Amino acid sequence: MDAAADPTVGELSEGEVLRAILSRLGPSQAEIGPGDDAAVLTAPDGRVVATVDTLVHGPDFRLAWSTAYDLGWKAAAVNLADIAAMGARPTALLVALAMPEDTRLSFVEGLADGLREACESLAPGCTVEGGDLTVSDTLTIAVTALGSLDDREPVLRSGARVGDVVAVAGELGAAGRGLALLFGRFRDAAGRPIPIDAAHRDDPELVAQLRPAPPIALGAAAARAGATGMMDVSDGLVLDATRLAAASGVTVALDAAALGDHPESALSGGEDHALLATFPQTLPDGFRAIGRVVDRGEHPVLVDGSPHDGRGGWDPYQDWDAGRG
Amino acid sequence: MDAAADPTVGELSEGEVLRAILSRLGPSQAEIGPGDDAAVLTAPDGRVVATVDTLVHGPDFRLAWSTAYDLGWKAAAVNLADIAAMGARPTALLVALAMPEDTRLSFVEGLADGLREACESLAPGCTVEGGDLTVSDTLTIAVTALGSLDDREPVLRSGARVGDVVAVAGELGAAGRGLALLFGRFRDAAGRPIPIDAAHRDDPELVAQLRPAPPIALGAAAARAGATGMMDVSDGLVLDATRLAAASGVTVALDAAALGDHPESALSGGEDHALLATFPQTLPDGFRAIGRVVDRGEHPVLVDGSPHDGRGGWDPYQDWDAGRG
Repeated sequence: MDAAADPTVGELSEGEVLRAILSRLGPSQAEIGPGDDAAVLTAPDGRVVATVDTLVHGPDFRLAWSTAYDLGWKAAAVNLADIAAMGARPTALLVALAMPEDTRLSFVEGLADGLREACESLAPGCTVEGGDLTVSDTLTIAVTALGSLDDREPVLRSGARVGDVVAVAGELGAAGRGLALLFGRFRDAAGRPIPIDAAHRDDPELVAQLRPAPPIALGAAAARAGATGMMDVSDGLVLDATRLAAASGVTVALDAAALGDHPESALSGGEDHALLATFPQTLPDGFRAIGRVVDRGEHPVLVDGSPHDGRGGWDPYQDWDAGRG
Repeated sequence: MDAAADPTVGELSEGEVLRAILSRLGPSQAEIGPGDDAAVLTAPDGRVVATVDTLVHGPDFRLAWSTAYDLGWKAAAVNLADIAAMGARPTALLVALAMPEDTRLSFVEGLADGLREACESLAPGCTVEGGDLTVSDTLTIAVTALGSLDDREPVLRSGARVGDVVAVAGELGAAGRGLALLFGRFRDAAGRPIPIDAAHRDDPELVAQLRPAPPIALGAAAARAGATGMMDVSDGLVLDATRLAAASGVTVALDAAALGDHPESALSGGEDHALLATFPQTLPDGFRAIGRVVDRGEHPVLVDGSPHDGRGGWDPYQDWDAGRG
């Protein structure tokens, strides 16, 4: 597309950028959708589940690696996973988009496509119902996700009980291995990110990192099946299991043999957004057992009976290398 | 405070920064407040009103002029106004905060204080119930506000009817005059922002710009009094009245004499977040008449019978000077 046909957002009015986005989103499912001061959404059981998570250029993504579509998809997926992790069904997204003035309209359109298709694919019935556009030196995508518990009780981190089976739904470690692949293989000699060639674009581990597809519908399924505790694995299994153990006052004892072919990356790799849940009895379809809840001991998490420091989890305040690309 | 007692967020873990914020927020009013994957909020009438708005360092504020407290206050206030403008009562905020690594903890604490006090002062019962922290080169504060209609119908931009009184609650023009004062008086010879001296810190026009106090409770009051149309005045009266007129298919005829001592700044100055509403009959306390809704004519807005271009409204894609400070 030539520059004349693909203006920058700085060459357009806020209204023009907004219309381009709205035309690519699915039809509103809300009582009042985008266009007024605020959206009005249904909350059928008198409660709403709400979360927000932000992707920032530099700490959270590189434009040499992520397309606009990838970013829209991932920004939706990570928030949908937080709704699912409460046992809820996602109903709506609000998207606050801050972009440099030289951002091309086609980029914004790709981002809208990624948001829409992530919702359609991972959480049918959930759509973007509102948002905000502003200018920034730093491309920033803050997504708020809302959801409905449909008369169920929320499933909290604090509900795991001694004797429960520890189970997981979704990938563990693939997104972390994808990140390692990006840093190891798709940088030049000076360490700068370089584009992913077509032959690798659909590598499952890169897809897991760039366009994660957490099992959103299994959050509500877990709640219906009697899950006692649940959270999404965003920072690595050991780190997140430590949080669940601390909130519940228990120890989580994991079985390395149940963690697949790459147990170390399953334990430490972040950003898969798998669902980690505890069940007193039978697991629902889609979950697999990876351990047991035991009495609180010296360590919150054990792997094959030994403590594990879970290093490899992502903390933006500790791990950011200040690069963008 | 010396640097040792006031670490940067880059020297702390995400959990430490989060705890410092949470300790300064009011007690949670939610079924499930901060600390799990998502919050669970009550939506007593089975609906939730939702909006998001972002403050970005550079286009939206300068750190020479705004304190951390000011920024927290304003980020809350502008979002509370969007909830009020639907005729709703704000119930909760979610705050996505992206900060440079060298941001001091005291800054984050000031921001949390501003968020809390804006809620306490403008919308009692509304508190911060969730959020997200990340690193960014550009300080960015994206706030999602949620609200309840308490069994009322939402008041939309599209509801104004011919014959209605056009009315406003809150300031018109003061925030715009405050901005002009900042650019005119509080910059050095090179145009760089300089701090506001103590003698001017409480100047009402600067306060209107830096810590706006829209009449949040009057949004629900307008709905109870039968308002037919409503929106908040964020981009200037003429520009926002044009939007209301377009959505309702009418013309808004304003009376300059009703706009106070500075009618031009009332017409064009943005960021007051006053409530603009239309009423078929008596105005509720707190609203004052500023015009009439008439049949749709050639122009969407008339001032004393003549068209007005409303210039002076703020469009971040047109007006940003790329400075920060």
